[in-house]
Amino acid sequence: MPPSAAYGAAAPIMVSFCAGTTGEWQVIRQSTWIGEPLPQAARLAVDAATPDASWTLTGFTSNLRYTTRAERQSLDARTAAIGRPEARMAALIPIRKSAVWWAMAQDDRRAIYERSGHTPIGRGYLPAIARRLHHSRDLGQPFDFLTWFEFAPDAEPAFEELLAQLRITPEWRYVEREVDIRLVRID
Amino acid sequence: MPPSAAYGAAAPIMVSFCAGTTGEWQVIRQSTWIGEPLPQAARLAVDAATPDASWTLTGFTSNLRYTTRAERQSLDARTAAIGRPEARMAALIPIRKSAVWWAMAQDDRRAIYERSGHTPIGRGYLPAIARRLHHSRDLGQPFDFLTWFEFAPDAEPAFEELLAQLRITPEWRYVEREVDIRLVRID
Repeated sequence: MPPSAAYGAAAPIMVSFCAGTTGEWQVIRQSTWIGEPLPQAARLAVDAATPDASWTLTGFTSNLRYTTRAERQSLDARTAAIGRPEARMAALIPIRKSAVWWAMAQDDRRAIYERSGHTPIGRGYLPAIARRLHHSRDLGQPFDFLTWFEFAPDAEPAFEELLAQLRITPEWRYVEREVDIRLVRID
Repeated sequence: MPPSAAYGAAAPIMVSFCAGTTGEWQVIRQSTWIGEPLPQAARLAVDAATPDASWTLTGFTSNLRYTTRAERQSLDARTAAIGRPEARMAALIPIRKSAVWWAMAQDDRRAIYERSGHTPIGRGYLPAIARRLHHSRDLGQPFDFLTWFEFAPDAEPAFEELLAQLRITPEWRYVEREVDIRLVRID
């Protein structure tokens, strides 16, 4: 694999998720796990101007903040691209972590991330479940992270399992707002 | 010191540096260390709308990306605030690092940062030289970092020493663009 394709090594891109009545993704389920809900969306447009948007969330992809070289090599071996034609289902999961999380130094955050098995859990579901992380906190947005997942319909049970595993980790004790938006692609 | 004052623990803020003919900071010297120069500025406004701006650079403060808990405790013990009345001199140093730097995983970048003594070098000049780091790369800006320094005029020789020490580190081999803009406050 050429270095440019390595996990998290691409140049940052800014991405907007607009909830409204247009957009290529139809909302099939929207649940609030913790904290304040988001207004219910009917459709979601990724990076398209939607004049009637009821809410827009924006974030940027970036370099990896915790992943070590060894972890990245293990991810690169199973990597999955966004936009595969068979990946007709998606999820947008905006998350905000607590002030206590953000007040911790890098090594303390990394230790919790590692103890939680964040990388191996996600890796276990690659390449069936593709994932792209967008950072939002630095933009003064209401969430810290917007994670976008894409998968084929037959991987949906595996996706539920992935979320269930993450949500019981020590890292998730720092999550104070989480909304889970499930989508299907409209053709 | 209350936790909210800990180094790098505050909520992110977005800051713009506008070069033009207005602004509270007068440019006394502008040098290009490596890479493409920036158009020469006469005055610099921090976070003020300047309709005639010849260039504007924007970045956000953020959580610490490399600093460990022990390092942060050593910084907190000597911390210096931005905006002290005696700090009548400032420097804005925009930097871009190479694609090779950004393609490295977190542990590899941290190892170079540590071997370079980045934290102890900066700490040695606290509290005389205050520093605020702004991240720019994730916004698609021409530089990755905008570092803002403030100090009293008698600390200028120490500031030159600080920069000289940083510029010979292994970390600086990854710097491919650096402009050094020196400023004095206009009252």
